[in-house]
Amino acid sequence: MNKNSSNIMALAPNTSNKRKTVCIFGTGDFGRALGYKLIQSGYPVVFGSRSTQTSSLIPKDAEVLSHAEAAQKAAIIIIAIQRQHYDFLIPLAEILRGKVLVDISNNLKINQYPESNAEYLAQLVPGAKVVKAFNTVSAWALQSGTLDASRQVFVCGDDMEAKQMVMDIVRALGLTPLDQGSLLAAQEIENYPLQLFPMWKFPILLSLGLITFFFFYCLIRDVIYPYVYENKDYSFFIAISITNRICPILALILLALVYLPGVLAAIIQLYRGTKYRRFPDWLDKWMLCRKQLGLVALAFASLHVLYTLVIPIRSFVRWRISSQTVSQALNNKTEPLNTTNAWLSDSYLALGILGFFLFVLLGITSLPSVSNNVNWREFRFVQSKLGYLTLVLCTAHTMVYGGKRFLSPSSYRWYLPNAYMLSLIIPCTVLVIKFVLIFPCLDKPLTRIRQGWERKPQYSE
Amino acid sequence: MNKNSSNIMALAPNTSNKRKTVCIFGTGDFGRALGYKLIQSGYPVVFGSRSTQTSSLIPKDAEVLSHAEAAQKAAIIIIAIQRQHYDFLIPLAEILRGKVLVDISNNLKINQYPESNAEYLAQLVPGAKVVKAFNTVSAWALQSGTLDASRQVFVCGDDMEAKQMVMDIVRALGLTPLDQGSLLAAQEIENYPLQLFPMWKFPILLSLGLITFFFFYCLIRDVIYPYVYENKDYSFFIAISITNRICPILALILLALVYLPGVLAAIIQLYRGTKYRRFPDWLDKWMLCRKQLGLVALAFASLHVLYTLVIPIRSFVRWRISSQTVSQALNNKTEPLNTTNAWLSDSYLALGILGFFLFVLLGITSLPSVSNNVNWREFRFVQSKLGYLTLVLCTAHTMVYGGKRFLSPSSYRWYLPNAYMLSLIIPCTVLVIKFVLIFPCLDKPLTRIRQGWERKPQYSE
Amino acid sequence: MNKNSSNIMALAPNTSNKRKTVCIFGTGDFGRALGYKLIQSGYPVVFGSRSTQTSSLIPKDAEVLSHAEAAQKAAIIIIAIQRQHYDFLIPLAEILRGKVLVDISNNLKINQYPESNAEYLAQLVPGAKVVKAFNTVSAWALQSGTLDASRQVFVCGDDMEAKQMVMDIVRALGLTPLDQGSLLAAQEIENYPLQLFPMWKFPILLSLGLITFFFFYCLIRDVIYPYVYENKDYSFFIAISITNRICPILALILLALVYLPGVLAAIIQLYRGTKYRRFPDWLDKWMLCRKQLGLVALAFASLHVLYTLVIPIRSFVRWRISSQTVSQALNNKTEPLNTTNAWLSDSYLALGILGFFLFVLLGITSLPSVSNNVNWREFRFVQSKLGYLTLVLCTAHTMVYGGKRFLSPSSYRWYLPNAYMLSLIIPCTVLVIKFVLIFPCLDKPLTRIRQGWERKPQYSE
Repeated sequence: MNKNSSNIMALAPNTSNKRKTVCIFGTGDFGRALGYKLIQSGYPVVFGSRSTQTSSLIPKDAEVLSHAEAAQKAAIIIIAIQRQHYDFLIPLAEILRGKVLVDISNNLKINQYPESNAEYLAQLVPGAKVVKAFNTVSAWALQSGTLDASRQVFVCGDDMEAKQMVMDIVRALGLTPLDQGSLLAAQEIENYPLQLFPMWKFPILLSLGLITFFFFYCLIRDVIYPYVYENKDYSFFIAISITNRICPILALILLALVYLPGVLAAIIQLYRGTKYRRFPDWLDKWMLCRKQLGLVALAFASLHVLYTLVIPIRSFVRWRISSQTVSQALNNKTEPLNTTNAWLSDSYLALGILGFFLFVLLGITSLPSVSNNVNWREFRFVQSKLGYLTLVLCTAHTMVYGGKRFLSPSSYRWYLPNAYMLSLIIPCTVLVIKFVLIFPCLDKPLTRIRQGWERKPQYSE
Repeated sequence: MNKNSSNIMALAPNTSNKRKTVCIFGTGDFGRALGYKLIQSGYPVVFGSRSTQTSSLIPKDAEVLSHAEAAQKAAIIIIAIQRQHYDFLIPLAEILRGKVLVDISNNLKINQYPESNAEYLAQLVPGAKVVKAFNTVSAWALQSGTLDASRQVFVCGDDMEAKQMVMDIVRALGLTPLDQGSLLAAQEIENYPLQLFPMWKFPILLSLGLITFFFFYCLIRDVIYPYVYENKDYSFFIAISITNRICPILALILLALVYLPGVLAAIIQLYRGTKYRRFPDWLDKWMLCRKQLGLVALAFASLHVLYTLVIPIRSFVRWRISSQTVSQALNNKTEPLNTTNAWLSDSYLALGILGFFLFVLLGITSLPSVSNNVNWREFRFVQSKLGYLTLVLCTAHTMVYGGKRFLSPSSYRWYLPNAYMLSLIIPCTVLVIKFVLIFPCLDKPLTRIRQGWERKPQYSE
Repeated sequence: MNKNSSNIMALAPNTSNKRKTVCIFGTGDFGRALGYKLIQSGYPVVFGSRSTQTSSLIPKDAEVLSHAEAAQKAAIIIIAIQRQHYDFLIPLAEILRGKVLVDISNNLKINQYPESNAEYLAQLVPGAKVVKAFNTVSAWALQSGTLDASRQVFVCGDDMEAKQMVMDIVRALGLTPLDQGSLLAAQEIENYPLQLFPMWKFPILLSLGLITFFFFYCLIRDVIYPYVYENKDYSFFIAISITNRICPILALILLALVYLPGVLAAIIQLYRGTKYRRFPDWLDKWMLCRKQLGLVALAFASLHVLYTLVIPIRSFVRWRISSQTVSQALNNKTEPLNTTNAWLSDSYLALGILGFFLFVLLGITSLPSVSNNVNWREFRFVQSKLGYLTLVLCTAHTMVYGGKRFLSPSSYRWYLPNAYMLSLIIPCTVLVIKFVLIFPCLDKPLTRIRQGWERKPQYSE
């Protein structure tokens, strides 16, 4: 480095480090919010607008020029305009050649147009490098700075360098860029903010279906049957008693459904003798929403716990216990302690408590910040070993709850078994298959298959 | 690149990648801890100190030189010295010209000095580039490596390049740099570690105020009134009964206060016909601490649940139920089941359980790691839709709890209504206003205003 | 830069930004999964394999060549081969000179070999730059994209530049690189995924020991004693009653053990007059697992709460209350309300609820995502102030629970005091010492020592 260049450096310090001007087309809500934030982070900002009158709403330090003038001042142009108005960019094509165009638009419906907005933009201005970004961020969140919701900014684009420039800006704004690959990913990224808990859809629909079925099942057994045969009005059972039957049933069934795809996958792998063929599509999808299934199950289990713990406060329960006691007193008889009943009652409560406790542990480890802090082996230990233990405890809890009632004919009203018996079918199936799979004659080949071994290797041309 | 330069590269590989020497002024606690950590991360470290004797406490691989010598060896100098001793830097001004000075100091009180320590440093050594950083990190945390508390390092400074260099070091130490802008932000950054939950102050003070009011209110109604009129000593009600009245009241009022600013803001926006004018200051502040208000409300709701669930274990409750039963038995009468009471009791419990359950869900989604994993639409769905549902359920829970007591004259002791009636005022107001705002004639203009539409546009010069 | 070079740039844009080819040795499970992910992230991938037949399992866009040919195409070579087969790299030493070799291997046991796999690789191919990385990531997690478990990739290596290249790849794959220093750290990194909750070992073993002791202690007092003297079968007490004695005892003891090392450290520092001498090893280790101890204590406290809340549902409890009531009715006597008992019962419940509530708060703030969002002062306030308050409340809860039973001779069966009395020893000791340490004559020198002051400074050569 000779003296001259060093002098130039002294005169214009930091030139190489100064942040490059960013141009924003459109002075709408999001454009302005982004402009404010960029200026705060040290970027010079120039707005491109139809009317070059500066409005009081536009950040003071920003210039407002015509679209063509503004575009010439920056290498990056953020298109804060709705897709319907993209046409106005066509005459600017020559000026936009080689520029980075950032498409931040969102649609109102999933797959509203045949191609994504970003791809449409790339077709309109073929000489520009289009990058999709920022569509998942809300203007309000940008402006207020309280990014309570996601800080993740999904970025995609065909030009690596352009994508890199945009990701640098994202980082400078205090957000987290996530590279999603080429512009083909834009469709998915544009759909993302329109989705409402996509992974939760199946678990929640399934729960609603099961709730409806078991609600009417219990209604028939517990309200209609006594009304018909004993002329008793137990309609108030709907509020707590029946809900508290449905919740544990759903919790147990959903928990079992978390582990069912795992054993099914093991059977398929054993049958095929390889792990390198894709599972059927339904099984793949099922496996991907296991976490959500488990969390919904945990929600029902928690409700069950709350509904159970309020039992002694219920007016009906107090009345029943009090009238039993009064009738005992009037009949002048004291019942001796039934040790078997005490054992059954205490052990089913204890099993339920332990099962719920482990279930909550599983839920806590599935919190993103907790699971980020355990290694792979610990995560598998918790989710698999503790998970099965939870399933065993909860199934045992339900069985011991049944106790002596399983075979008592009085519990079959209108030939309908108690609802909890139905809930035991899936968990018991899962546990039996899992138990069979533990035997060495099946476990050994399965382990080898999972380590990559194949019964009939496929290396062939 | 010619052959020569490539040879030089081969002889001295990595020169461009070697980490640059960092100088630390001051061999105090924090200076040494930082030195250790820097050496671990591959930085050569040189200490500048009054006495150049190496102490056993200074990391072995570090050099200890006089301040002037040490400063010449590095481009970055970390000033690990208290503000009172900054004067000694004045004679070094020439050596420090163009260097990056990192101010890591903290004060003992908020706004202790008129200007921030970093700005004071910049005034003392005008030729240097001052960057504020590291003041939120504790020496102990650095040394032990167990950064249980924050990994966030707030960085600010006027020189972009200098700030970038410091942020690179922060990242190399495994910490997360957060760019806070120019040196003007130093005051705020220096106050930050001195603050104790600043956003929590208002919710907690408000709670304390409300607790005091409702405590004496309930004391008068539930302890003093029976003492005066019936000469009964119910002082033990203070421990559980009165607390369990105060907790749900506070939970409900605070929850309603979370949603009140939202409806107030809607009214203001509708009245003004634009969203581009700032809300009054108190409303802005109120909106920023809604999350904290909600969490305090959740805390009271949880306490209410615990206090309610222990009711049947209370010695007083057992005594009361038992004496009622005994008196029934002695009077030889059995009470029939009151279905209306059973319905009321069960449905108020069920409403409370569902309300609490949704409330806990809201709390979980406000955990940073969970809210980072949902998109903006999901976050709004949970916080707004589920939030209002929670408020409706909790309000209904309180109303059904009241049941037939609303109009019973016996519940007005000394003309004071039951405390829970007072707690219904704010939630009902919020729900009524929200209900009115849902009507299309108000909802449509509001939606348009929130999308940026203005009744009287302000574009003017 | 002259005009020519600029023309070349125009013809081949992005060359400098295109991602560099990555070579993977080994077409096994992990190699392929990594290959897929790299291609997705825009890296050209070439596999080095014994057989150059492309298998259907290898990603389509990847080339498969011989090891030697593949190595020449890339600067980074990922060795996805087991340690036993590293020998085949020796003949390739010349080709691998100067290349970056990424060791991703794992062992089956902790410290299986005298030196780490990465160091062994560095010995075999001395001309290459070995970097350890990726061993904590599972192939399945990479492939499925659902990185539920850790996104953290520990990286170590002697060459700063090579390490930087690998860390850039890690980041491009959407994972978080954590620089662990030189290749010496490889042993630890290789052991990491084999460890199962290392910090939890001591708290869990200690709990198991205490559980065993208190189980037999309570069994003797509560089951064997009544069986021997009163011939009553209370064996069902094991399910709930005894468990519910053990859980609170363990919670209290473990909570006290969280704060015991702190007061011991204070005593040692006061005695030594400096904070710059290392604590004994056992104390250091103890202090590092305080968080885990606290969380195990919280688990026991939660179980205690659940076990306590189900008390009124237990068949035995219902029987006991009912028979007491019946016998009262038969004896025609009504007991008056015992206000002292009501006070004792209510206040021990209230203390327990408040203690548990604060305990849960402590647990929530120890969630990584929450503790990352508080500053150092807030974290210390919660963990120290609130922590001691929790300990005080829980100790008081236990004492009031004891109530009048402390001195009653009937509670000493076979000269064994009630189990809860034993549990009070450690918490009371901690609280007494802490109380003494608060006195200014001890607190002042301690604060000065912790700020770096020394009674006998050690600056000497």
